[in-house]
Amino acid sequence: MGKVVLHMSMSLDGFVAGPNVGVDRPMGEGGERLHEWLSTGSGSDPRDAEVAAEMFATATTGAVVMGKRTFTVGEGPWGDDGTFGMPCFVLTHTRAETLVKGATTFTFVTDGIDSALAQANAAAGDKCINLMGANTAQQFLSAGLLDEIQINLIPILLGDGVRLFEHTATEHIELERTRVIESAGVTHLKFRVLK
Amino acid sequence: MGKVVLHMSMSLDGFVAGPNVGVDRPMGEGGERLHEWLSTGSGSDPRDAEVAAEMFATATTGAVVMGKRTFTVGEGPWGDDGTFGMPCFVLTHTRAETLVKGATTFTFVTDGIDSALAQANAAAGDKCINLMGANTAQQFLSAGLLDEIQINLIPILLGDGVRLFEHTATEHIELERTRVIESAGVTHLKFRVLK
Repeated sequence: MGKVVLHMSMSLDGFVAGPNVGVDRPMGEGGERLHEWLSTGSGSDPRDAEVAAEMFATATTGAVVMGKRTFTVGEGPWGDDGTFGMPCFVLTHTRAETLVKGATTFTFVTDGIDSALAQANAAAGDKCINLMGANTAQQFLSAGLLDEIQINLIPILLGDGVRLFEHTATEHIELERTRVIESAGVTHLKFRVLK
Repeated sequence: MGKVVLHMSMSLDGFVAGPNVGVDRPMGEGGERLHEWLSTGSGSDPRDAEVAAEMFATATTGAVVMGKRTFTVGEGPWGDDGTFGMPCFVLTHTRAETLVKGATTFTFVTDGIDSALAQANAAAGDKCINLMGANTAQQFLSAGLLDEIQINLIPILLGDGVRLFEHTATEHIELERTRVIESAGVTHLKFRVLK
C-alpha cells in the first residue's frame, strides 16, 4: 500500500482557506493568498515550482480522497479534464454515479473513510494517496491513517477562516520533520507521522 | 524605541500550552513537550542552545511585558532572582506594589497595553521588549504593536490547549520570513511583521 499524504498551504495562524468558502469563492475570502506561490510565471521561484510539481505527479500519486465541499467548489475550476488525471474518491452522504472527466474519475463514497481508503488503495497500488480538504484530513488524522504531512507555510496571519488542525484527536501525535525547503516566500515543511 | 518581539514554542497545530494551565501545571497538560528543546544537557543541539540564549539575553532585551496568568504560573518556577534580570511589566486588573526579585522587577500595570508598552519602552531604551503569554501577544498583534515573531515550531500535534493565534484582528497581517534555523528537533522561524 502507498502512503497517505496530506499537502496543504497554511497560514502561520493555521488557516487553509479564508472564511465563507463557496462555489464563487473556492478559497474563501482572501484565501487565494495561500496559493499565490503555485502561480507559474516570471518571477516565480523554482523551489516552489519543484514542490508544486510533486503534489499531484502521476508518477508518484495514484489516487485522491477528498471531501464533498472540496469537490463542489473545485469541480468548476478543475475544468473538463478534471485536472488530476487519476481516480478521485469523494466522501459524501449522497449516492451518485461515477463522473468521468478525461483521465480523471470522481467516485462518490457514502460509507466513510475506511471504504474510501480501501478503494483508493486498490486504485493507487504502491503509489501515494493524496488527501484534499481540512475535514477529510482531520478524519484521517484522528483515525491514525495519515502517513505524511507537507505544509507550505505562508507568511501571513489570516485571522479567520478554515483551520487545518481542529477537531482532531486530543492524544498527542508526534511527527518527524523530514525536509525543509525555503523558497523566497514559502517555507515548505515535510513531516512523517509517527505511530 | 526597541522592537516588540514575540518568541514562542508552538506545536504544528498552533498550541503554545496544553489544556488546563495552572500553578501546578504551568505549561498545561502535556505542554512541557513544547519546551523540551530548551533543556540543556548532553544530547542537546547547539543550534537550539543558540536560539534559546537569544530569547532573554540582557544585551539585546531590555524589558518584558506579560499577562497575569503567565506571571501567576511562572512566579514559582522563576525562583528567588525572578530569572529575567530586567524590568517586567504584568498586565492585570488588580493593583499591587512592584515586586523586586534580585535584578528582576515585576511592575503591575492596570491601565492596558499602551501604558505597559510606554513603561517598557522607558525601561528598555533601544533594546527589545519581549512579550510573554498568548493573550498578551494577541492584544499587541491586534493593536499593530508587534514587530517580530519568532516561532520555535515543534513537530507535534497537541490536539488541544492554548492557541497562540486566536481572537486576533481579522485583517490580514503580512509577514516577512527573515530566518530559518533547523535543529534536530525544532524549526526556528523568524518573521518581521509588515505594517
